[in-house]
Amino acid sequence: MHSIEPTLSHLQHDIDQWLQAIKRSDLAAIRSHYAEDVRAFDAIKQLQFKQADYFAHWQQCLEFCQNHVAFDLQDIQIRHSADLAIMHALLYCAGVNDKGEVQGCWMRVTQAWQQQQGQWRIFHDHFSVPFDMVSGAALFNLQPDAA
Amino acid sequence: MHSIEPTLSHLQHDIDQWLQAIKRSDLAAIRSHYAEDVRAFDAIKQLQFKQADYFAHWQQCLEFCQNHVAFDLQDIQIRHSADLAIMHALLYCAGVNDKGEVQGCWMRVTQAWQQQQGQWRIFHDHFSVPFDMVSGAALFNLQPDAA
Repeated sequence: MHSIEPTLSHLQHDIDQWLQAIKRSDLAAIRSHYAEDVRAFDAIKQLQFKQADYFAHWQQCLEFCQNHVAFDLQDIQIRHSADLAIMHALLYCAGVNDKGEVQGCWMRVTQAWQQQQGQWRIFHDHFSVPFDMVSGAALFNLQPDAA
Repeated sequence: MHSIEPTLSHLQHDIDQWLQAIKRSDLAAIRSHYAEDVRAFDAIKQLQFKQADYFAHWQQCLEFCQNHVAFDLQDIQIRHSADLAIMHALLYCAGVNDKGEVQGCWMRVTQAWQQQQGQWRIFHDHFSVPFDMVSGAALFNLQPDAA
């Protein structure tokens, strides 16, 4: 198993770099972590986003969330082979609204990475919030401890 | 690449068997496709379900959806190595309500499989429906063509 330890440490480093790019709203740096043929299931708006459309969507999200104060992973699990990896985690997103109040919620993220030419690239994202069966409303008040 | 073709055909067969088990509401057969340490992000109720809790949840879902008429994947993408695989697809779920009307919606599913002792097992599920940013309501009327 020692031979694949560098794989995991490279991947953890890249996941951290991806998070840092989001925290500073750096679209070019965010995009550098993705494969060109990415297909994403985001938490909002559409069933799926493919390739360049996904980065236009990322740009809109960054503009919308200019006052974000948290984008943090918790309870991260990673499984990988030499060139394929899957990461799933809980994700806490928070921002400051017009009244200066911090508003946040817990979400889930699943992410698939492949090593291409020596670099790990994300080829699939899945972000979501569960919904309530009765009201059909997204459940923004769930807490990890209650899961 | 020829050496891993059997891997893909076995996996496709197992995904098909998993779908068939759901269609006939066979919890034991559904469960046989999962690893014991599965962690799932379902579309409803909670942030996550782990291990045996997930099958108690599956049982409730099967009881709730006794009149389901569709659980079909579309636009399936699979990427795999010798012992790790990720599948993502759009999912059409439909059932018959109390009035005899068919009600359905499009969802998304991401699934991670690992080969253990010669068998493919699901160790992670992520099902979801996107929500509307303004109303906070889950978007049950999205169509694949509009994605």
